[in-house]
Amino acid sequence: MMSDSIQQNISLDHIRVIAFDADDTLWVNEPYFLEVAKKFGDLLEDFIPRHNASQELYKTEMQNLPLYGYGVKGFMLCMIETVIRVTSHAASPQVIQKVIQYGQELLNKPIDLLDGVEDVLTALSDNYRLVIATKGDLLDQERKLEKSGLTKYFHHIEIMSEKQPKDYMKLIKHLDCQPDEFLMLGNSIKSDCLPVLELGGHAVHIPYHTTWAHEKVDQSLVHPRFVQIKTIRDILPLLKQEAVAK
Amino acid sequence: MMSDSIQQNISLDHIRVIAFDADDTLWVNEPYFLEVAKKFGDLLEDFIPRHNASQELYKTEMQNLPLYGYGVKGFMLCMIETVIRVTSHAASPQVIQKVIQYGQELLNKPIDLLDGVEDVLTALSDNYRLVIATKGDLLDQERKLEKSGLTKYFHHIEIMSEKQPKDYMKLIKHLDCQPDEFLMLGNSIKSDCLPVLELGGHAVHIPYHTTWAHEKVDQSLVHPRFVQIKTIRDILPLLKQEAVAK
Repeated sequence: MMSDSIQQNISLDHIRVIAFDADDTLWVNEPYFLEVAKKFGDLLEDFIPRHNASQELYKTEMQNLPLYGYGVKGFMLCMIETVIRVTSHAASPQVIQKVIQYGQELLNKPIDLLDGVEDVLTALSDNYRLVIATKGDLLDQERKLEKSGLTKYFHHIEIMSEKQPKDYMKLIKHLDCQPDEFLMLGNSIKSDCLPVLELGGHAVHIPYHTTWAHEKVDQSLVHPRFVQIKTIRDILPLLKQEAVAK
Repeated sequence: MMSDSIQQNISLDHIRVIAFDADDTLWVNEPYFLEVAKKFGDLLEDFIPRHNASQELYKTEMQNLPLYGYGVKGFMLCMIETVIRVTSHAASPQVIQKVIQYGQELLNKPIDLLDGVEDVLTALSDNYRLVIATKGDLLDQERKLEKSGLTKYFHHIEIMSEKQPKDYMKLIKHLDCQPDEFLMLGNSIKSDCLPVLELGGHAVHIPYHTTWAHEKVDQSLVHPRFVQIKTIRDILPLLKQEAVAK
């Protein structure tokens, strides 16, 4: 964690575009995945210890990530593949059917907005161009946004297959702004902050209480264009509230 | 089929943006799915006749389309669900593993450009803004485009969860052109032509020798802003070759 005094030093005077990550930044996501991962462990408890089930699932996910990308459908396919592998083909089709059911339930979860999100979007939408920059399955992310009722606040929605610097560069170019005018907020240092800082943009980290292993980084970040805040509401005092040229 | 004389009557003088569907318009796609569907029938031949296997798979696909959207990952999940249902849970996990393998092979297929595609894109790219408008899994469609070597011809790539009029409207607005300046080319009357015509745009149908049942329409289309051609090369004589304001 950075000290409060350092946090206040970030200068966000030139910001025109604010991009928000969606999952675990605007609404609950990872806890739903963890809930399914727990039920997945239960399904396999006759075959392997619960802890190994998560490890094996993560191994399958990492192996297939370049092929499937992010999102629930790939997660479902990885659960199925893991069941087959760890049971040495001994699992019944009922187990696989359960996995499909869990995945479909995940796709149908209601949207649970995080505290303060709507207030912050309301406060910022008059003075800034707001966009969403999120990874995941195309239709699923669109559906979640639709369900969230937040569409009206956003100028543009970017569903990305990756969040590498080149992907943000494309987005920034598309939004016709300079990296220095671009601020990204999200719960992942790895995906939401580091690539944006690399391009000359600004980044705000809002840690969520649980983070997918793939998004974790072993470093504490100190950077003149970076700040970590506790909740999304803490962004407001850092930004000018008067009108700026969007 | 429309007569040659009617075909020549379409006026494409105002076109500034030409959008191409990708699968089965720029490169081979449906035959690869059919190949997998055939192998899927083989897998299930101990349980149900081949024709029923395709019907059952299609039924599962239609049922899950609102949840999964288009693309290979959803297709894989539908094959797995179909295996479990039609075998009344009697299929071995090996069968499901085979299905996963077929799907992964589909994701790794090489890109086979259709005849004339590169010549047409080369001829048009100086005078028109060219874009891709395609359905499917985000990462998979991006990867196919990358493999195709065609990226350099396109001003913008739109991967869409649906091809309804509202989706095209968003694209046209985003491209900052008028519907009357927009021309869509594709192999599906339902997805590539009808919604664009509804908005006041122009559409060109290039039938492919095989079409997914979901994309078929039972109507012959006659419309002043529509034309059907035999191969992608036939678009060239219909378009002005001199420079236009893009």
